[in-house]
Amino acid sequence: MEDVPTRSQAMGQLTWTVAGSQVLGLAVIAITGVWMGHYRGGISWSGMQQFNVHPLCMVIGMVFLYGDAVLVHRVFRNETKRITKILHGVIHCMAFIIAIVGLVAVFEFHRKSNITDMYSLHSWCGIATFALFFIQWILGFSFFLFPGVTFSLRSSYKPLHGFFGIALFALSIGTCLLGILEKIFFSIPMTNTGYEPERVLANVLGLLLVAFGISVGYIVTKEEWRRQPLPEEQALSMDFKTLTEGDSPSDS
Amino acid sequence: MEDVPTRSQAMGQLTWTVAGSQVLGLAVIAITGVWMGHYRGGISWSGMQQFNVHPLCMVIGMVFLYGDAVLVHRVFRNETKRITKILHGVIHCMAFIIAIVGLVAVFEFHRKSNITDMYSLHSWCGIATFALFFIQWILGFSFFLFPGVTFSLRSSYKPLHGFFGIALFALSIGTCLLGILEKIFFSIPMTNTGYEPERVLANVLGLLLVAFGISVGYIVTKEEWRRQPLPEEQALSMDFKTLTEGDSPSDS
Repeated sequence: MEDVPTRSQAMGQLTWTVAGSQVLGLAVIAITGVWMGHYRGGISWSGMQQFNVHPLCMVIGMVFLYGDAVLVHRVFRNETKRITKILHGVIHCMAFIIAIVGLVAVFEFHRKSNITDMYSLHSWCGIATFALFFIQWILGFSFFLFPGVTFSLRSSYKPLHGFFGIALFALSIGTCLLGILEKIFFSIPMTNTGYEPERVLANVLGLLLVAFGISVGYIVTKEEWRRQPLPEEQALSMDFKTLTEGDSPSDS
Repeated sequence: MEDVPTRSQAMGQLTWTVAGSQVLGLAVIAITGVWMGHYRGGISWSGMQQFNVHPLCMVIGMVFLYGDAVLVHRVFRNETKRITKILHGVIHCMAFIIAIVGLVAVFEFHRKSNITDMYSLHSWCGIATFALFFIQWILGFSFFLFPGVTFSLRSSYKPLHGFFGIALFALSIGTCLLGILEKIFFSIPMTNTGYEPERVLANVLGLLLVAFGISVGYIVTKEEWRRQPLPEEQALSMDFKTLTEGDSPSDS
């Protein structure tokens, strides 16, 4: 009577869902590029085009790379835990650097154009997300990559790291949606309230961002797709825990 | 060496976190009311004020009541599963009706004022959220309250119901943030780019919406706070499953 998929079926479904998420993520980057390239005069580090660096960098860093960093533990499930943790940290580091470039671009553009900083809800949510992402990265590094942290400390921080990782990812996508709406208000006169091609493109971008977020969230929270410790990790963690603390094994 | 909180400590923490979430949720409703009442001329079913019914209803229905419906299984953990399921469904039903009033208000306001419908990202996200919420409600009712659905069907749908429940809640809050930004663009001249009191109030409302969303998400995903089946449910479900399907017990 049971209708539970076999392990290989579950892994096949995971592969297809990850592939789908990557198509969505690349579509998001491509559409942001088309929007900035075709409708907003392209990308440059000077003039009006300097602003356009901002959406592109934030979408690549705080959405696509962030999402893919989150997926690392599910996708590279046959690599050692140490390798996946390092890869997770490195991709987040790349996301952080690209996001910094995107932030510098918009603040410099504002300064050169005499535009007030940090007055809109987009900027408030964006700075909050970025600051919390930075704190999360530092805490993640300290707990999971810094040597000498005990198993029980890692185990008690791990659910918090996972929860806030996903919450900040959602907030990051929400901030992008706010940015899209704001940019459309600045680009299309408010008296035009129709289905202008640029607005439709921007709205489709918004929906694709949501779809990417949902696909990543689904993959990372689905119980059957959780990474299982490799046999040697299971044995090692048992030994290590017995030696150091004497409590039960964990996948941290 | 273990630092795991006792059951009563965990329940005490749950109570305080739920109390905090309710303070945030009520603050969100109050601030939306103050915004519409103090800055936007109050609430009415006619004239310009008809629009103001929309944000208030959507925040009460699709955020506060939606969030509280999600929390029912955690908060009323000593009631029978049947009672909590009915309460969950009833609060979602109230949320749905109040959201309908909010939607009728804005569409009627648009019709009377000759404003185009459904062109902005806020409206696209909003309609998508509402339609998916409706589908989720129908599916939830059919699987969990309609008699005669088998244990394995309920068990296989349950994780999807939980995941999309939280994803749509996040999308609902994202849509509110878009609505806040849009309303500020229509209310404050675009040449004013400073810290006008109305804008600051609206931005604070946005951050509080995010905080409410995070608090509800945290409560509902924290493993230690998951509702455990009552002793009699455990026994009943074992009997029922053995009689009908012969597979392992579940809390569906």
